[in-house]
Amino acid sequence: MTQPRLYGGIEGGGTKFVCMVATDPENIVNEIRFPTTTPAETLEQAVSFFTQYAEKGLAAIGMASFGPVDLDPASSTFGYITTTPKSGWAFSDTISRLHQAFNLPVAFELDVNAAALGEYYWNIENRLRDPLVYYTIGTGIGAGIIVHSKLVHGLVHPEAGHVRIPHDWSADPYAGNCPYHGDCFEGLACGPALQARWGQPGEELPAGHPAWELEANYIAQALNNTICNLSPKRIVLGGGVMGNPGLLPLVQQKVQKLLNNYIHSPVITEHIDQYIVLPSLGNHSGVLGAIALAKLEVDG
Amino acid sequence: MTQPRLYGGIEGGGTKFVCMVATDPENIVNEIRFPTTTPAETLEQAVSFFTQYAEKGLAAIGMASFGPVDLDPASSTFGYITTTPKSGWAFSDTISRLHQAFNLPVAFELDVNAAALGEYYWNIENRLRDPLVYYTIGTGIGAGIIVHSKLVHGLVHPEAGHVRIPHDWSADPYAGNCPYHGDCFEGLACGPALQARWGQPGEELPAGHPAWELEANYIAQALNNTICNLSPKRIVLGGGVMGNPGLLPLVQQKVQKLLNNYIHSPVITEHIDQYIVLPSLGNHSGVLGAIALAKLEVDG
Repeated sequence: MTQPRLYGGIEGGGTKFVCMVATDPENIVNEIRFPTTTPAETLEQAVSFFTQYAEKGLAAIGMASFGPVDLDPASSTFGYITTTPKSGWAFSDTISRLHQAFNLPVAFELDVNAAALGEYYWNIENRLRDPLVYYTIGTGIGAGIIVHSKLVHGLVHPEAGHVRIPHDWSADPYAGNCPYHGDCFEGLACGPALQARWGQPGEELPAGHPAWELEANYIAQALNNTICNLSPKRIVLGGGVMGNPGLLPLVQQKVQKLLNNYIHSPVITEHIDQYIVLPSLGNHSGVLGAIALAKLEVDG
Repeated sequence: MTQPRLYGGIEGGGTKFVCMVATDPENIVNEIRFPTTTPAETLEQAVSFFTQYAEKGLAAIGMASFGPVDLDPASSTFGYITTTPKSGWAFSDTISRLHQAFNLPVAFELDVNAAALGEYYWNIENRLRDPLVYYTIGTGIGAGIIVHSKLVHGLVHPEAGHVRIPHDWSADPYAGNCPYHGDCFEGLACGPALQARWGQPGEELPAGHPAWELEANYIAQALNNTICNLSPKRIVLGGGVMGNPGLLPLVQQKVQKLLNNYIHSPVITEHIDQYIVLPSLGNHSGVLGAIALAKLEVDG
């Protein structure tokens, strides 16, 4: 009997790394989580995890990193995190150590792109909803986009957290916390902005608190703009902030109100609950996207 | 000697129709323009123009229509203009008469999508700049997008004129003229909005008039959002409003200022004059896009 191919996936975040070995979402062999410290120490922990599987059929590794990253295979800094403010990680190489440790293909992506791929690749219904947009709304805000069956990289990669949206200063005098743009979408609506505006973490704000009405307004403005720009067939909303029960229906209602029946499709006017949805892979979209990257690297 | 294949192109606008027969932009055989009246009368004029070429190698016709349109080949109203406020044209069929008159393939697209295709297909440099976004800023505002070598349709088609952008009511008390959204991008920045705000047509407003600073602000806000959403490699700005000399450099500067060096690419930080550009086909992007549609229909 031949050994089944195993794939390695890494979701490298700014606060924690998740490493997984699996064949697919139904067959997860092992998974660990550890805090993000220095690049060398953190990557070494990943290497020692995957080393256990090197002789057991590990066929490829997918690395999904926090950004911004260099996704250009022709660049001398391909596989690097670039201009992050995170101490020690600016212009750090995330894939050479993996190449050195294992004689295996290593695929590389931005974390939110991998999460978009995970939701698309492992979910048959989502595969019929191309273009598909995946947003993460948490410590930061970003989006990954599938168009014509493939992730969009473009000039660098989408940075959908940094769009400017209408900001009513009289209703919300908070100036935003983005060091580059002040009151861009991320500056107004990410987890730390919630904490700074209301003096307590988002997960502690109760349902019915005015925070959620405001948060839903900003998210709906951003989704409205994405819908007008790209006409996606589905939008998946991940990230910690979306964990608040009640936020999703508020967002759905506000998007309908903003579009005001202009986009002539029952998908929006009648089935918005199937149009703007939570991730089907829960909080595993990113690492299972990394598994998909590894699988695509060797299986095509 | 075999006859060269000729392609027919129609750019069907709300005020005028342009019909062309050509093999490519360097070999335009004939072109006519006539006012848009009723659907039947207007389409009949197109039919009589193309009839001259039916026995002379006409191989296919591309129809690029004003919108919104139904682009879904599986729909019973494929090839129709849908919810337009233009009298007599709501839910009108634009392609059956062409099929009936000529036993030829007929391709159908939204006008701004065809213009995006024209700029992409006929310009070798633009083909290396995928994703490419084409905006028209004129009587209305819209955008067509090429990703992974193909036009994006999505759920319906992009409606990038209808994004919401920051609107400083104290600096610009004009409420916007969009019947659906008031002060969306189109509502604030289309040609009729310029006329309503300043009391004279945009083309009569001199360089240096405050209208242009405000107009450039709004266009830059919309482009900034498109750049963050999609990370395009080039943005082409067509349409009558862009005919104002001096507007393009203002837009380029304001986009750089809004992005504030966040997108780490010399294409934006150093070569913005090659990033946001005017159409290489002048005001023929749409009809030459329709020619490309016809050619792709028979030549693949």
